[in-house]
Amino acid sequence: MTKLDTLYDQLTLPTKAKLALVVMDGVGDIATRENGFLTPLEAAKTPIMDELSREAIQGRMTPVAPGITPGSGPGHLGLFGYDPVETQVGRGVIEALGLGLELQAGDVAARANFCSLDPDGLVTDRRAGRIETEECERLCALLSAGIQKIANVQVIIQPGKGHRFVIIFRGEGMEGPLSDTDPQREGFPIAEAAPVDVSSKKAQKAAKLIRDFYEKALPILKDERPANGFLMRGIAHQPMIPTFQERYKLNAACLAVYPMYKGLAQLVGMQKVEGPQSISEQFNRYLEEYDHFDFFFIHYKYTDMYGEDGNFEAKKQAIEALDEALPILLQKRPDVLAITGDHSTPCPMKGHSWHPQPVLLHSAFSGCDKLDRFTETGANIGSMGVFEAKYLIRHMQAHARMFDKYGA
Amino acid sequence: MTKLDTLYDQLTLPTKAKLALVVMDGVGDIATRENGFLTPLEAAKTPIMDELSREAIQGRMTPVAPGITPGSGPGHLGLFGYDPVETQVGRGVIEALGLGLELQAGDVAARANFCSLDPDGLVTDRRAGRIETEECERLCALLSAGIQKIANVQVIIQPGKGHRFVIIFRGEGMEGPLSDTDPQREGFPIAEAAPVDVSSKKAQKAAKLIRDFYEKALPILKDERPANGFLMRGIAHQPMIPTFQERYKLNAACLAVYPMYKGLAQLVGMQKVEGPQSISEQFNRYLEEYDHFDFFFIHYKYTDMYGEDGNFEAKKQAIEALDEALPILLQKRPDVLAITGDHSTPCPMKGHSWHPQPVLLHSAFSGCDKLDRFTETGANIGSMGVFEAKYLIRHMQAHARMFDKYGA
Repeated sequence: MTKLDTLYDQLTLPTKAKLALVVMDGVGDIATRENGFLTPLEAAKTPIMDELSREAIQGRMTPVAPGITPGSGPGHLGLFGYDPVETQVGRGVIEALGLGLELQAGDVAARANFCSLDPDGLVTDRRAGRIETEECERLCALLSAGIQKIANVQVIIQPGKGHRFVIIFRGEGMEGPLSDTDPQREGFPIAEAAPVDVSSKKAQKAAKLIRDFYEKALPILKDERPANGFLMRGIAHQPMIPTFQERYKLNAACLAVYPMYKGLAQLVGMQKVEGPQSISEQFNRYLEEYDHFDFFFIHYKYTDMYGEDGNFEAKKQAIEALDEALPILLQKRPDVLAITGDHSTPCPMKGHSWHPQPVLLHSAFSGCDKLDRFTETGANIGSMGVFEAKYLIRHMQAHARMFDKYGA
Repeated sequence: MTKLDTLYDQLTLPTKAKLALVVMDGVGDIATRENGFLTPLEAAKTPIMDELSREAIQGRMTPVAPGITPGSGPGHLGLFGYDPVETQVGRGVIEALGLGLELQAGDVAARANFCSLDPDGLVTDRRAGRIETEECERLCALLSAGIQKIANVQVIIQPGKGHRFVIIFRGEGMEGPLSDTDPQREGFPIAEAAPVDVSSKKAQKAAKLIRDFYEKALPILKDERPANGFLMRGIAHQPMIPTFQERYKLNAACLAVYPMYKGLAQLVGMQKVEGPQSISEQFNRYLEEYDHFDFFFIHYKYTDMYGEDGNFEAKKQAIEALDEALPILLQKRPDVLAITGDHSTPCPMKGHSWHPQPVLLHSAFSGCDKLDRFTETGANIGSMGVFEAKYLIRHMQAHARMFDKYGA
C-alpha cells in the first residue's frame, strides 16, 4: 500500500451511502471533420444525462498514463481504483476471465491454441489450419478427460473460439510470468516455458509443471490431424489483489452481461448478479438489489462494440438507449452516481485509444459545473479536470461522505 | 527506468510516422491590464495556427513542477521527455553546450570566470574588472597552449562573453558535482573544489584534478593584470542519458540556430542539421530532410528573446513571423505536429517563468477541442488538460500509433 492508500484507509468511515458506477464501455470519442466535428456523445439526444449534468460535475480521465491505450483489463482495474501499471494482469488471466472461468489468487493461466507438428516435433502450422470451434471443443474434452491433475495441481481446460483455448493450473506455490512456448515461426519445435524472473522458485515450479503437462498432453493428441500439438502464451498467475471490501469498505455488486467484465469484477471481489441481459434489466436489477449492496458496477458494452466497428450512428444510438433506460435507475437515485467509460473507442479509429474518457459525477455534494450536457468538450472544462482514472473511486467515496477530515 | 518507462518501452512499435516538435522558446505569457488583458499569442494574427487548431487538441504543460521556473536545460529536457528533476544537468555542462562544445558522457565541465588576486592569493575582484571578450579569448588561448593534458585527462578551454569561459576535463572515472571555487566574497582565497558526495571516489579524483589544474594554470596567469586568477562554478559531469533512439525508437534531427539548443539536442542523441539561420530556412530544411529522420525538433528563439526584453510588440511579431512560415513545413505535413514552448517568458516579467506553456497537438487522431485559435486561454479548456511537459513526447508517440494496446 502506498502512503496515500494508507491515508485513505485511515480516513474511511462507514456510511449507508449507495454508490453507482455506470460504465459505457469505450464511450469517449474524437470530433473529426468526417463526423461534422461532433462525437457520438455530442450528437446523441440524451435528455436524462443533460438533466443530471445540470447538478453534476465533469472531468476527463487518463485511463492508465499519457498516450497508453488500455485493454479491458487495465481499463477496468483503473476504474476500480487499482493502479493499472502496478497491478498487471496477464493475458492468460484476462482470456480465462473472458471465457467465464473463475480464477483464484495464485492460479496460473495461459492462452493456448492448437498447432500442427511434423513427426520430428517441429511446428508446421502455428494455428493448426484454424480448426473449427467444435473441433477445438472435442480436443479440449479429450485433454480434460486425460489430465485432471498433475501431482497436486488441478488442470482446467476451457475451449474458446476457433483453435484457441485456455489452460488453468490451480495449486500452491506457483507464479508467472513465463515465456511463451510459441516459437513464433514454423519449422521450429515448441519452445520451453521459462521463468521471466529466473531467480523465482515459484516460477521454476510453474515451468516444470508446464513441461510435465506437455509430456502428458502431446501423447493424447498424437494421432489427431491437423491439431496434434498446442502452443501457450501469456502464461501468468492471478495476482493477489485486495478486494473492494478490504480497500474501500464497500460491498460491491457487478451488473454486467459479458463474461470478461464479470471476471474483472470478480477479480476485485465484487459479487456477480447474474441474469440481466439488457441495460433496462440491469437497472431494474439494481433496484431489486439496492438494499443488498453499497456499490454497483453497471457495465454497458455496446458503445465500445459500435466504436470498434467504426459505426458512429449505432454508437450514438447505443448512448441514447442507455439514456432512455436511466430513469429506471433514478427511481432509487444513488447517493453518488458516476457515468463514464473505461477508455475511449473512437469511431474513426475502430479500436480502443488513449484519449481521456469523459466522466460525470452526481451527488448531493457535487455542485455543478454549469454544463447543460455530458460531452467530451464539456468535460474538458469541468471542475474535475483531467485526472487518472484510478482516482475516480476516491472522488466517489468523498461524495458519499466516506472520508473523515484529514488532520485538525 | 521507472515501471512506467518500462511499460512504454514494451509497448513501443516501429512506425513510419513523422513527428515534428516546433518549440517557440518562452512563448507562454500572461494577460495583464497593461497589455489589454491579452497575451502576445492572443494579440498576434496567426491564420495558419488558427486553421490547425480547428483540427487539433490543446493543453498546458507544467515545465518541471508547480512553481518551478526552468532554464533552457531543464525546459528542453522536459520537452524531450526526460524527467527534469531526476535528470539534472549541471550549469557547467549547459554553459559548455551553449558555447557550442560537444560533450561526451563522463566529461566534467565547469563555468569559469577570470578574477583578480592580490600577492597573497586573496580575491580582490571576483570578475577581474569585467574584462573584454577579446582579452578573455587571449587568456584562454594562453591557458590552452600551456595545458593540454593533466595526466591522462584532456583539458578543453573555451572562451565565452566578457570575463567568462568554460573548462572541460575529458577522461575516465570522474564525476561531479563539486563545490564552487568561488569564495563568493572578496578578501578570501580561491576555495577548494570539494566533492558534494564526500564518499565518491570519482568526485575525489575530479577534485584532485582541479587542484592540479590550478597549480599549472595560476603560474601561467601570474603576470597578467587584472586577470591573474579564475574561479570555477557549477562543476558537474555530463550524465549518461539514454538517447532519443534508445528511449523512443525515433531517429531525431535538431533544426536549431543557437548553440545551446543544438547542445541540448545533442545531449539526447539528436543529430544536428547545420546551416539554417531563419525559421523559413529551418522549415525548408525540414522538407529536405523529411525522409531521413522520424522526429524533428525545430527551435525558434525570438519569442523568448523578446519576452526577456519585455517587448510585447516584438514577441507578437515573432509569433506572426513563425505562423507565416508554417506553410513551408505543412508542404509535407508531419503525421504528428506539436507546437509549444519550453517554458513561458512573460513580457511583464522580462524573464523565464513557471507559468504552464500552451501546447497544440495535431494529428489524424487528435480530434479537436472546438477551439478556433491557439492561445493560453484556449489551451486552458483543451482536452489535454494541464500536464507535465515530460509527457508530451508520449502523447506524440501515441498519436503516431507507436504504442501497442496495453493488456487484453
